[in-house]
Amino acid sequence: MAIYLDNNATTRTAPEAVAAMLPFFTTHFGNASSLHGFGAEAAAAMRQARRQVQALIGAAQDHEIVFTSGGTEANTTAIRAALAVQAGRGEIVTSTVEHPAILQLCDGLERFEGVKVHRIAVDGDGRLDLDAYRASLSDRVAVVSLMWANNETGTIFPVDGLAAMAHRVGALFHSDAVQAAGKLPLRLAETEIDMLSLSAHKFHGPKGVGALYLRKGTAFRPLLRGGKQERGRRAGTENVPGIVGAGVAAERALARLDEAPRIAALRDRLEQGILSRIGRVLRLGDLRDRLPNTAALAFDYAEGEAILMKLNAAGIAASAGSACASGAMEPSHVIRAMKVPFTAAHGAIRFSLSAETTAEDIDRVIEVLPGIVDDLRGLTPFWAEAQGGRHVA
Amino acid sequence: MAIYLDNNATTRTAPEAVAAMLPFFTTHFGNASSLHGFGAEAAAAMRQARRQVQALIGAAQDHEIVFTSGGTEANTTAIRAALAVQAGRGEIVTSTVEHPAILQLCDGLERFEGVKVHRIAVDGDGRLDLDAYRASLSDRVAVVSLMWANNETGTIFPVDGLAAMAHRVGALFHSDAVQAAGKLPLRLAETEIDMLSLSAHKFHGPKGVGALYLRKGTAFRPLLRGGKQERGRRAGTENVPGIVGAGVAAERALARLDEAPRIAALRDRLEQGILSRIGRVLRLGDLRDRLPNTAALAFDYAEGEAILMKLNAAGIAASAGSACASGAMEPSHVIRAMKVPFTAAHGAIRFSLSAETTAEDIDRVIEVLPGIVDDLRGLTPFWAEAQGGRHVA
Ligand SMILES: Cc1ncc(COP(=O)(O)O)c(C=O)c1O
Ligand SMILES: Cc1ncc(COP(=O)(O)O)c(C=O)c1O
Repeated sequence: MAIYLDNNATTRTAPEAVAAMLPFFTTHFGNASSLHGFGAEAAAAMRQARRQVQALIGAAQDHEIVFTSGGTEANTTAIRAALAVQAGRGEIVTSTVEHPAILQLCDGLERFEGVKVHRIAVDGDGRLDLDAYRASLSDRVAVVSLMWANNETGTIFPVDGLAAMAHRVGALFHSDAVQAAGKLPLRLAETEIDMLSLSAHKFHGPKGVGALYLRKGTAFRPLLRGGKQERGRRAGTENVPGIVGAGVAAERALARLDEAPRIAALRDRLEQGILSRIGRVLRLGDLRDRLPNTAALAFDYAEGEAILMKLNAAGIAASAGSACASGAMEPSHVIRAMKVPFTAAHGAIRFSLSAETTAEDIDRVIEVLPGIVDDLRGLTPFWAEAQGGRHVA
Repeated sequence: MAIYLDNNATTRTAPEAVAAMLPFFTTHFGNASSLHGFGAEAAAAMRQARRQVQALIGAAQDHEIVFTSGGTEANTTAIRAALAVQAGRGEIVTSTVEHPAILQLCDGLERFEGVKVHRIAVDGDGRLDLDAYRASLSDRVAVVSLMWANNETGTIFPVDGLAAMAHRVGALFHSDAVQAAGKLPLRLAETEIDMLSLSAHKFHGPKGVGALYLRKGTAFRPLLRGGKQERGRRAGTENVPGIVGAGVAAERALARLDEAPRIAALRDRLEQGILSRIGRVLRLGDLRDRLPNTAALAFDYAEGEAILMKLNAAGIAASAGSACASGAMEPSHVIRAMKVPFTAAHGAIRFSLSAETTAEDIDRVIEVLPGIVDDLRGLTPFWAEAQGGRHVA
């Protein structure tokens, strides 16, 4: 395998992050909550990591960062806390295109815990229906959870304004920024966002580490109770090496944010190369406001999973929607929410780049993809028919 | 810092575990749920890790192992699942000496969610009050949660029999085996235990990885919903390096279980050395049935935190009760539950050994501790008084 274009699923951990982690496995391996020297080293390293993550998202204070085991835990913690601390409010507002970590959580809350969930629709470009959003807001809403950037299409929601609207009805505002952190400049201190989730492995940090941003003063109840770690907001022995790695990755991602235009140019080169060589390809998502690294393309009459398999055989890793949905042959919930036409919906794939992606990687995809799509289309009688040919099955 | 006797707080990650983890950060870094080659490597490694953990605890099937972010998450998942799937049962039975990850969880459930919690007392040796336990059991109990071995004293509960009793009233049985795994032979398949928690960093695996054993057929509801990872039982991108490290550590711990007598001999040497050189020292816990590696000692008229500080200055790391309780000057909940006499309760410290502990380490403690305790006792008028001297304050 040589070409990795699945960076929205996960990224290569930066060697600097791994190097920084190593001493905390075998040398400074103490429990960060212990009083002795072994623990002190760990505690100091965690303080630095907290400041590094703070800087990445532009939070006002380092203690607004609560380390978690990843984006899923951060999302779950945020939503459950918001419900728990506002007994009089039993509704959630979210969108139809959130990550399963939000949608499945909401499904469970609705089904088992009597919570009412508003799932705001998106248009064909993946943009939130603002009228429906406005209409869903009331003093019954405990929390609004809307993602900063979509993992499948890269579409960006205007979360700052959405947060302000939520606050007008006294609801808390949470944003799943797992795909935004490290890809877009974030300045939390300048927004009205109360809670925000991120996950280190999406920005070249280690897997199994994430963070919940919790604005100072936000009412809260922990998901994991027990030890006093994270100021009592997240119990459990701190994953010191992981947190150190997340910190280094955050610092590195912040320093490399200015590479976004270069990555976007590679992404555009990929899209243009494909569009100019392959017919009947749709670009999905909001082309005016999206992540620099994500290209979501739908190929009429070619099965997405089949394209991926052939790309994989050619040494190219990409993805059909979210990795979590892989294995299923149905279009993802995001594709369905955008009402992508049937003939294309089954042919959606995602290329997600990183700062490590090269022009050669892109050119190789442009080189092999036309043949792959042609082959697959050649196998289906519908393609011939769509071309005006006869149905030959 | 040279001598580490705080292995119940956390352990040094085994170099073999770290070595096994490394390729999964930067080479086989794929998302284990992805279809392409990068993901396949990760998925295969996880299968092996699951079997290694299965072997450590003697589970019947590898899919009874659900990887989590640690012991706290495993505990929380188990208890909440048991309550969620048994709507008609709203009580929990646990003990007064559980880890805060269980006790604080129960406090929250009682305070905020209307759950009734029975906290079974222990005697002066830390042994469970079996009559009280029996009396607490009824068809209102959703789950019994009793730890396999106590983190502060090493006292072992007879969980197998306790599980059988819980089953007689139709309750689920969970055991927090965070301190038992890797220290005692566990044969889950031969017990009636339904759920069990463990945490890799307690047996020389990495921090931030744990597992929930979930006996096949046990009704369950996930704490973290979202992606289909862990067969839908624990969502979130898998911490592949961490899980690989946990697997290697489990295999290594299993292979080294036969070192327990050697470790126990070192622990006994430590205790005898201290008892023969220092007056008025109590050994805490059930001396007939306890972990091989744990010595909990209470020094009359010497403040535990002060002893620790001086030990630390001498290059020896130990702990006062659980690390999570450090910082507080009050005796831990375990010490209080055992009704350790007041004069000793404030002087309790824990030495916890590992297979890496040497006779030299032990002898060094025996050498420096008498002077430390003497010095501290010399500072308090109560000591002189207890010795029959005058109160000189
Ligand atoms: C008995 C016991 N249970 C649970 C835990 C919590 O495990 P973790 O800190 O890995 O979440 C610990 C250690 O901290 C423990 O000693
Ligand atoms: C938008 C979004 N939210 C949440 C998650 C979940 O993060 P994690 O898998 O680290 O728990 C992901 C990725 O899996 C994601 O893309």
